[in-house]
Amino acid sequence: MKFSTLIILSGLFLTVSATVSAQRKDSKGPAQHRIVMQFNDPDSVSQTRTLLQVQNVRKIWPDAQIEVVCLGGGLDLLMTKNSKASNLVAEWSGKGVIFAACNNTMMNRKVTKEDLLPQAVVVPAAVIELATRQEEGWSYFRGGK
Amino acid sequence: MKFSTLIILSGLFLTVSATVSAQRKDSKGPAQHRIVMQFNDPDSVSQTRTLLQVQNVRKIWPDAQIEVVCLGGGLDLLMTKNSKASNLVAEWSGKGVIFAACNNTMMNRKVTKEDLLPQAVVVPAAVIELATRQEEGWSYFRGGK
Amino acid sequence: MKFSTLIILSGLFLTVSATVSAQRKDSKGPAQHRIVMQFNDPDSVSQTRTLLQVQNVRKIWPDAQIEVVCLGGGLDLLMTKNSKASNLVAEWSGKGVIFAACNNTMMNRKVTKEDLLPQAVVVPAAVIELATRQEEGWSYFRGGK
Repeated sequence: MKFSTLIILSGLFLTVSATVSAQRKDSKGPAQHRIVMQFNDPDSVSQTRTLLQVQNVRKIWPDAQIEVVCLGGGLDLLMTKNSKASNLVAEWSGKGVIFAACNNTMMNRKVTKEDLLPQAVVVPAAVIELATRQEEGWSYFRGGK
Repeated sequence: MKFSTLIILSGLFLTVSATVSAQRKDSKGPAQHRIVMQFNDPDSVSQTRTLLQVQNVRKIWPDAQIEVVCLGGGLDLLMTKNSKASNLVAEWSGKGVIFAACNNTMMNRKVTKEDLLPQAVVVPAAVIELATRQEEGWSYFRGGK
Repeated sequence: MKFSTLIILSGLFLTVSATVSAQRKDSKGPAQHRIVMQFNDPDSVSQTRTLLQVQNVRKIWPDAQIEVVCLGGGLDLLMTKNSKASNLVAEWSGKGVIFAACNNTMMNRKVTKEDLLPQAVVVPAAVIELATRQEEGWSYFRGGK
């Protein structure tokens, strides 16, 4: 009878594990939509377009997590003196959208944290950030034009 | 003995569950290849190139599911008066390839369903469509140049 | 008692299976980072930038698997007479980075294996290569500008 009890407990444990695992998988589906956007474009039209794409997602999926990763010429979106969409960055940041600045681009272009909009979050490398998010189950999108 | 029977049934159930789960995972692999393409490019060379990329996939994976999501300048591929590849769109659509037009782009560019090739399927937002497909296990590709 | 033993063995088997399955899933996470890069850009600045992106990944993730898939104008990166980064391709290839040339692009541009850098690996189609890697769990990145 001791054995039987052990087996029942073990069975219960496996069932619980399976359920937890299933829920984790479902969290990638309808429950929580997560999109990471790569943004490289240097022009101001693309800046506005990317913010429009953010808006388009939230209109349909109000709770979607969105992160815009800016690198290369795309860093302009987050630079105080170059951004043509600073108001929209502030607005959407207030609604939980993450705006990440690639530190490698910053070093190459001699841009410091002080040159960025206050909403910008500095990440070590854009590629690493984009890959990490995908490893976590986020979907990829290339923002801008 | 009643307990033992219960446990055996429970064991069988778990085994069956595991098998079903494994099969679902495999369906993402060799069994069914699925590719969603983001197409933004406004030029006609890129239009033809994207259709060539569709052809290249089907030459090697004859049963691959392919969806080309057109947004921004890429919508021209699906507009009757702007498309330089309407014959190829008709041909591949007949072979099961989906050609999706972003409704947000349509509204911004004042394009109506009547302006599109008959094969075009209108989707609410390109980003949402691309993310949904990736959530379902499709691979991502940036079409065109 | 025979039944009980059977059930214990069955329980052990299920536990082991679950563990193996969990490890396989984790291998997608921190254990092994894998990034496949699509590279289409025809200009030399983008060539150098892509190699810089490779370097940026390895600085933070020294063991990351990286594959750069070159198609369209991006094939120049792997062509002996057009590459502006042949030294860096040789260096990173020596450190395990894969540089893949799209055979469809080669046929369209009448480029043969002999025209490529010795480090280049020819793949049947860039789209197929990028999709296969993502099916295996690699993350996607668009290299270059």
